[in-house]
Parts: sequence; structure tokens; C-alpha cells
Amino acid sequence: MPSYTAPTKDMQFILHDVLKVSDAPTPGYADLDRDFTAAILEEAGKIASEVLAPLNPVGDTEGCRLENGVVYTPTGFKAAFAQMQAGGWPGIDMPEDFGGQGMPYVLGTAVGEFFSAANQAFTMYQGLTHGAASTILAHGTEEQKATYLHKMVACDWTGTMNLTEPHCGTDLGLMRTKAEPQADGSYKVTGQKIFISAGEHDLAENIIHLVLAKIPGGPEGIKGVSLFIVPKFLVNEDGSLGPRNGVSCGKIEEKMGIHGNATCVMNYDGATGYLLGEEHKGMRAMFTMMNEARIGVGMQGVAQAEIAFQNALAYSRDRLQGRDITGPKNPDGPADPLIVHPDIRRNLMEQKSFVEAARAFLLWGSTLIDAAHRDGDRDADGLISLMTPVIKGFLTDKGFDMTVQAQQVYGGHGYIEEWGMSQYTRDARIAMIYEGANGVQALDLVGRKLALDGGKHVLAFFDMVKGFCKTAGETEEMGEFVEPLKRASKDLQTAGMYFMQEGMKDPNAALSGSYDFMHLFGHVCLGLMWARMAEASLAALAAGTKDPEFHQTKLATARFYMARQLPMTATHLARIQSGAEPVMALDAANF
Amino acid sequence: MPSYTAPTKDMQFILHDVLKVSDAPTPGYADLDRDFTAAILEEAGKIASEVLAPLNPVGDTEGCRLENGVVYTPTGFKAAFAQMQAGGWPGIDMPEDFGGQGMPYVLGTAVGEFFSAANQAFTMYQGLTHGAASTILAHGTEEQKATYLHKMVACDWTGTMNLTEPHCGTDLGLMRTKAEPQADGSYKVTGQKIFISAGEHDLAENIIHLVLAKIPGGPEGIKGVSLFIVPKFLVNEDGSLGPRNGVSCGKIEEKMGIHGNATCVMNYDGATGYLLGEEHKGMRAMFTMMNEARIGVGMQGVAQAEIAFQNALAYSRDRLQGRDITGPKNPDGPADPLIVHPDIRRNLMEQKSFVEAARAFLLWGSTLIDAAHRDGDRDADGLISLMTPVIKGFLTDKGFDMTVQAQQVYGGHGYIEEWGMSQYTRDARIAMIYEGANGVQALDLVGRKLALDGGKHVLAFFDMVKGFCKTAGETEEMGEFVEPLKRASKDLQTAGMYFMQEGMKDPNAALSGSYDFMHLFGHVCLGLMWARMAEASLAALAAGTKDPEFHQTKLATARFYMARQLPMTATHLARIQSGAEPVMALDAANF
Repeated sequence: MPSYTAPTKDMQFILHDVLKVSDAPTPGYADLDRDFTAAILEEAGKIASEVLAPLNPVGDTEGCRLENGVVYTPTGFKAAFAQMQAGGWPGIDMPEDFGGQGMPYVLGTAVGEFFSAANQAFTMYQGLTHGAASTILAHGTEEQKATYLHKMVACDWTGTMNLTEPHCGTDLGLMRTKAEPQADGSYKVTGQKIFISAGEHDLAENIIHLVLAKIPGGPEGIKGVSLFIVPKFLVNEDGSLGPRNGVSCGKIEEKMGIHGNATCVMNYDGATGYLLGEEHKGMRAMFTMMNEARIGVGMQGVAQAEIAFQNALAYSRDRLQGRDITGPKNPDGPADPLIVHPDIRRNLMEQKSFVEAARAFLLWGSTLIDAAHRDGDRDADGLISLMTPVIKGFLTDKGFDMTVQAQQVYGGHGYIEEWGMSQYTRDARIAMIYEGANGVQALDLVGRKLALDGGKHVLAFFDMVKGFCKTAGETEEMGEFVEPLKRASKDLQTAGMYFMQEGMKDPNAALSGSYDFMHLFGHVCLGLMWARMAEASLAALAAGTKDPEFHQTKLATARFYMARQLPMTATHLARIQSGAEPVMALDAANF
Repeated sequence: MPSYTAPTKDMQFILHDVLKVSDAPTPGYADLDRDFTAAILEEAGKIASEVLAPLNPVGDTEGCRLENGVVYTPTGFKAAFAQMQAGGWPGIDMPEDFGGQGMPYVLGTAVGEFFSAANQAFTMYQGLTHGAASTILAHGTEEQKATYLHKMVACDWTGTMNLTEPHCGTDLGLMRTKAEPQADGSYKVTGQKIFISAGEHDLAENIIHLVLAKIPGGPEGIKGVSLFIVPKFLVNEDGSLGPRNGVSCGKIEEKMGIHGNATCVMNYDGATGYLLGEEHKGMRAMFTMMNEARIGVGMQGVAQAEIAFQNALAYSRDRLQGRDITGPKNPDGPADPLIVHPDIRRNLMEQKSFVEAARAFLLWGSTLIDAAHRDGDRDADGLISLMTPVIKGFLTDKGFDMTVQAQQVYGGHGYIEEWGMSQYTRDARIAMIYEGANGVQALDLVGRKLALDGGKHVLAFFDMVKGFCKTAGETEEMGEFVEPLKRASKDLQTAGMYFMQEGMKDPNAALSGSYDFMHLFGHVCLGLMWARMAEASLAALAAGTKDPEFHQTKLATARFYMARQLPMTATHLARIQSGAEPVMALDAANF
């Protein structure tokens, strides 16, 4: 049976040795001292290991069940959901005014990784609620906030986001769902939405759907889309539940993974909805939810890679097969453990060096979100806006790859369902698709984010890397980490320059390289994280840390990333520089 | 619903324009003229599309069922199996003496790709039988051949291979299954084997298990392993079926994919077995089966990539979403088809450029097998022996990646089971594992095959590439294909040289780079195939072909591979040259 242990030590290292969160000027960060975060992480890790992880295979095997319009979640989900609510976990980083714990987003990300790793399908119920609540918080009227937020922060009511329709996913301008204004200021919402995660279930007494729809007579296409709150049960003035609204679940999908989360076809049949934000400005409001969701999805990629790695590592130590080519390591046993073999180590090191840097990248990104939201830091806001597609696209692609590699360590045992490794791969696969398929992330990065505010944010990123390399590179022992980072960063700048020059002449020259650029950017970010972690570990060693092995391991893992992963930037650059021609040459008919 | 059309035109191009099979001196090849192979391919393509492909989702959804020791295959499998038998397909390349069609292996590979693409789980029943029959053909006594081969060639009886036990997979020296000699010259086989594909089912009247076991008192470890024929029903002297033997299926596995094929736990309880080949030389005999199986598994990787690509391509032409950034391509419709978008094209071109070159690589490899087996060509035998791990490891890794990319074209529709794309990914995943996990293929390549016969075969490969580049490179128009191939081949030689120099000092220096070397080798092989296909297409164009678009498309796809895929060799080389240190630095305890 697979198991999960929350990587609290690694999380503490990143928060305190690398990011030094309690020294940061961001409001609320002063409280994040080592003991405080240790206590939170330990509690969260415990519930993840003991409550959520055991339900992960249950959710996969049982799946959800739709009967007469009611969706039943897998055995044990209800009790675990209640336990999460009782612990206040869903509202950890929501405002105290609405019953949340008021902690920074970075802490929400840290515990969120634990929960997602232990049980992605389960954690989505509260994750989507968080996103919907954030959107109401950002765009709702005072009355709307008062009506919904307390309940949603507590997860007594959960939330959803309704974008996709059968004929439109990425291109939401094609949307057909209608919202007709009523005399009382409400709307009647009619249409069908698909792929609605947590659209219907038995975990909460009400479900607050956020639904994109068009008000008749409005602008054509995406400019005529508005956002509506459509509760499953209408809410009376006193906050109690009123009659059932005209929304129902028509079907739940059979899918490759995340079986424990109900993916619903939702039918809106003159359902009562309330405008959220301004008329025809629905996409802007929805993006509040989507940007947060994209960071959360990037986190899922890392989380699945982490639990897959943990189990692959344990298996590689237990399973005896073959002998170390340089001489037996377990001479009294019938064979040596798998971990003695170089290619198994290569595989494990790829996983380890990805997961640890990806975690640092996520937490660093989360500090930018806190700086933007809590401190109004517009540079941080611009930078995280630039990073969001990289976090979502690169971390989920690589996270999935790592679950595949972890599976491989098990040989045939990785393919049968009994050992649980197949589930990580099947669950991780969705993260590359939802909240904007990764190709769309690449398009967002190259087509929109690079040029945002006159290219200010990407230049700020390069300056930051340059500044780090200069300062850190002053010490001789940092040279081995800083030099590869410099080379990789130069590849990224060259690629960016290529887009600027060629993209002006032919936008396809830039867009043909967008996917490679997203990965190139991701590698530079993880290289930066490894260099920063190396710096922190060297400092800890110099200060006479009591745990030198931990820090020596960080340095060795950083070296692996620099030697074995960062060279990918050259290949990405070569592909980018080959331009549009190889990609665009064929007529569609000739493929 | 997914569909499948056999790529007969592409197959014909490779067989006749590139490999020029009917001009080859290999016995039997003179018969392979265009019309003859066209007729065979067309028939095979028809049964693949019309009979096997519709059963593919059925097999996935229903799976196999074990009841009271009997395994029931999915609805429709029995009738389809009978249809395959009636057409003589299972024995297409088996000797006429035993009821086969006597055609070359290359033709078996060609039609095998169609069948595997249309229904991998189904085709495994006959594929394993083919491997078992080949082993009996190579190592059996005349009596054994007479007893089993006619029935197996016809698939009236199917075959299996039994290697793995619960505690040993790759390291078969740990095997516990025993074969005790009996007075009549037979053996009593006792033990448990796992992961036995097609171990029990209802498609054939008898199942001939080939079982590895140890004769008590024999040498320790792998040197004491022998191979046995253990029929499900004993065979009477007149060839009729006798009593049930002491072998039974204890369980069938739940697994990620290939649900239509029963993966069995087989219990041998004093079952009567007959020695196949020599005592204690079981591995040598089993390798006849495994080498063939490895080529067959490489083919499965290509086959799943092909069907996934076909469906992704069709979807990208049908699905309207967004507008071409350079202006509408479908101005009268609500949006343009997906295929206008550069990143969708990048994705599709990666698939197309892989599948077509991989197919050529497989067919070329198959001509080497024919040359070795039909003509006793020892150089061809050495070369295919070197290539086998590359074909198995590289083509299944990439084949799987391509199914993942194909799924991505569908967005959310790729994740739900309804569209069939998830099945290709789940089915393709096994090919990276069985018949020797891909890490073991890399070890076989670097640890054994490179140095085989004093390194003769790898040098022959380099000479062949060099010779091709020299001859083909004489024409100016081939320069754009030959130059990148030369660079990639140089990277491969540099890597090989690195292993020779560093591997002498430290074997881990070579083995740490084995996986990258396997991929580097694979890229050079596909680069070579693209250069050869480009040469053939240029010749066809120069000769005034009636189908210039087909050949122009080949050239464009070759250019894509050279520009976008072949640069990977530099990254693989950089990783290899970083040596053992980054991979081996950590103590097992510190991961």
C-alpha cells in the first residue's frame, strides 16, 4: 500500500532558510516564525497522512455515483471533509472577517501541497470553493459577501466554476449559455456546462456555482460574457436555505483519474442567478479565480510528483534485484536493493531534483502573491502574473513525467493498480489540461505576458537573476551553481530576443516556439531555485548547522540539476530559433 | 468514437521507395513486389479497422473476468479471434511446414503494427503465441515441433512466457519455481509465476506455457535456469487433448490499461513439463522469445502513437476554437479549426515526425532480422542485436509520450474515457515496462551490446551512417538532411567514446548515462530514417511522381525532425558527459 509523509522539513527549509519569510516586510509575515509554521505544517501533515492518504485509493476505486440527480462521493469522504472543516483548514488563508484564519497565502500553498499529494480528488472540493470564495471576495457586493462568504470559507457550502460548454473550451467567446434579466434584478440562467469539477456531491449543504453566461443584446463574443452566482439552493434573507434552484447534474464523466471528484455535466434551466461584478466583464472576474486556480494546479503537479517519488524511493530501497556492478552492497541478502543501480538513481535524482526546486518555486511565487495582495506591491503582481503560466504549464508537465518515472521504478508492479503508482500518473494527467491546457499557458506566456506593461516584468526577472548571480557569484563555492544558471538564463534571454525580433515580422515565429519557451523558462526558474537553495545550505554549513547531511544533500541535488537538467535549455533554444517554417510548412490537408 | 485507418500508403513507401525490399537478396524478398504487399496490407488494414478497432474500447471497458478458474475475454473477442485465424494472419511469417504463410518477418511487422494499433490487448494473444512458437521452432525437438507447432501457428493453441515471480522480475537468478525430473523424462513443475499475459482465456482450446524453472541440484542463480513446455491440457500421442495439467490461474490483475488482455497469476502445482532446449540453458532459449518480443513491443509503442495521432489530427481539423493569429481561415464559421494554431501544429508535427520515422526504423530492423534468419547474415544479426534495446526502449518511451501529446490536443475531452484517447495512453504505458523495463534495455545496450564482438556492430553502424552521409551528401539538396544527421551521429560517437574511456575506470560513469545514450541512439536512428526517406522522396520527385504532395510532405516532415527533434542529442551528450558523480553522489539513506 502506498504511503505519504509530509515533507515538513523541506518546507521549513524553503520558508526560513531560503525565503526567510519572517524577515519579509509583507504584512502578516512577521508572525511566520519557525515554531509557528512548524506547528501548522505538522498538524497539516498529520491529517494528510492519516486521514486523506488512506482515502486516496478508495476514491480511485469507488469513484462517484450519480443516482436520481444526487452524487454520492466515495466511502469516507464525508467524514474526512467534516474533519477538515473542524480543523479550519479550508479557510486557513481567508480573511478573519469571514471566519478564516487570516494567514498568508504562502502558508495555504504549503499545506495545500500536503493535502493535494495525499488526495488530489478530495482536495479539489475545497480548492474550488477557495477559488470561488476569492472571486466573490474580489468582485462581490457587500451583500453578496455577507450572504455567501462565511459559509464558503467554512466549506459548509462549496463552490464551482462553470466555463466550458460542449462546443467551447478555450474559446469562451462561442458560449451559448444565456442570462436573462428579471424585474427584481436577478437573472434567469439557461444552458449546459460540462467538465464541472465538484458540480454536485454530498459533502456540503449547498453549492455556489459561478457561471459564465451571456446577457442577450450584449456585445458579441468574449466581450459579452458576464459572471453569475447561481446557488444550488436559493438563500433566504435570514441566510437559511430556500427552494432548490433550476440547476441539476445531468451526468458524471468516466475519466482517466481523479475518480473521487465528480466531474459533472450541469444543466441550467432558467436557474436564478445574481450578477457578480459588472455586466459583460465576466472574464475579468473569472480570471481572479483562474489565476489562483492555475497556481493551485501547478501545485498539484508538484504534489503528485512528491507522493510518487516517496513511494518509488521506498520501493527502490526495499526491492532486492541484481547486484551493484562495483560489488555487492547487501552481501548477506539474495540481491542488492534497486537503489544501488545507476539508472535507478538517475531516475530518482530526476524526481528529487524536480520536486524540491518546484516546491521552492511555488512557495516563492506564493510570496509574490502575498506581496501583491497584502502589500499592494505592483511589481510582485506583475512578476507573478508573468510566472503563472510557467508555474501551471511547466510544473504540471514535469510533475506528470515524474509520476511516470516513479511508476517505472516498480516495473510491472507500477502498472497494476495494487501498488497505487498508476493512480498518481492518472491523477496527475489532468493537471496538464484543466484551467487552460498547457499549450494555452504557453500562448498566454509568449503572446500576452512577455509584452505586458512594455515587457517590464520579464526584464525585472532577468535583472533579478543577474543580481543574484552577481552577489552570490562573489563567493568561490557558489561558482558551480551560478555559472550554469547564467548560461541557462542567457538562453532564455536569447529566446526572448528572438521572439521580439521575429515575432514582429511573423507572429507564428514566436508562437511556434511558445511551448519550448515555457519549458525553457521553467528550467531557468528551477535553476534559480537550486542556486538559492545551494546558497542557503552553504550558509547553514558555514554557520555550523547541526544537520550537515541535510545541507550536503541539497548541494548534491543542486549539482545534479545543474549537470543533468539545465542543459535542456540549449535544446529548447535551438528549437525556438528554428522558427515558424518547420512547424507551419504543411497545409492542414497534408498532415 | 475513435477510428483507425491503416497507414498502407506510408508502409508501401517505406517498403518499396526506401528499403526497396523486392530488390534485396534476402530469400523470399523477390516476391515482395508492390502489388503483392499492397494486397496483403489492404486486407490486414481492413480487418484492423473493421474488426479489431471497434473491439478496442469494448475490451477496455469490460476487461477480462475470472470465474472458477476460467477467464472470459471481452464480448466479441472470440469471434474476432476466429476471424483472424480463418484469415491465416497469426501464421503469416511462420514456416509453411507448420501451416504458416512463410512470408518474411518484415511483412509480419507491417501487418502487426496495424493489428496492434487497432487493438493492442487483443493482438497480444496472438503475439505471445508467435513468440512461444518461434522458441519451440528454434529450440524444440522434432517431436516437440510436430506436437505443438501446427496448432500454435494456427492459434488453435496459444502460447505464453512465464518468467516473473513475486520476488523477482529483472533478476531471474532469484527464481524459486522448481522442475523435478521424472522417470519418464518429463518434469514436475511447481511454483508461482506472475504478470503472465494471456495466461488463461477462452479464445483457444489449449494454452502452451513456456516456463522458466530450476532443476534441483543445478547451478546457483541464473545459470541454473531451464525452460519447460507446460501445456494447459496434456497432449495425447495422437495429438488430441488429454487431461488437464496441474496449472491454473489464481488471479487476474487490475491494471492501468490493456484490460482486454488477461494478466494472470499462474500457479504450477506439480504440473507436467517438458524440457525445451538444454538443461540450465533456459535463458538462452528464452532470449529467442524475448528478443522477438522486444521488437514487437517497440512496435506497440509506434502503433499506439499512430492511432492516437490519427485521432488527434482528425479532432484538430474538426474542432473549431479560436482564430488563426494571421487572419481567419474559416471566416464563415464561428471559429477556425484547432489545426491553424502554431502550438497545435508543433504538437502534431512531433507526433507525425516520430511515428513515420519510427515505422521506418522498425521495418528496417525487420529486414535485418530476415537477413539474419533467412540468409544467415551474421553482420545483420549483430546489428539488430545492437538495435533491439533501442527499438524497444526508445520507441516505447517516445510512443507513450506521443499518446500523451495526442490526448492533449483534445483538452478535457482527452481526459474523459468517452473519446478513447485515455486508453491509448494507458495501453501504451505498459510497453515501457514489459519484456525488460526500459532502464534494463539501456543497461543491455551500454553494458553488453556496445562491446559485443569487440564493438564490431556499433562501429558498423557508424560506418553505415558515414557511408550514407557521404553518398547522399553529394547532392546539394540532401545537404539540409545530411548535415544535422552528421552532427547527431558525432554526438553519439562522442558519447560512445566517453563510455569507453571513463567506463574502464568506473563502470558507473557509463551506466549513469545509459538511459540518455539509448535516447541519443534512438534520435540518430530516426534522423537516419528521415534522411533516407528524404532521399527517396527527392528521387520520386525527380522522377516525376504522380503524387508530389506526398513526397513534399515527407520532406517537410523530415525538416521538422531535423530542426526540432534532433537537437536533443546535444542535451543527452551533455548529461552523459557529466558522468557518474551527480548521479551517484548521495548515500542511499540521504535521498
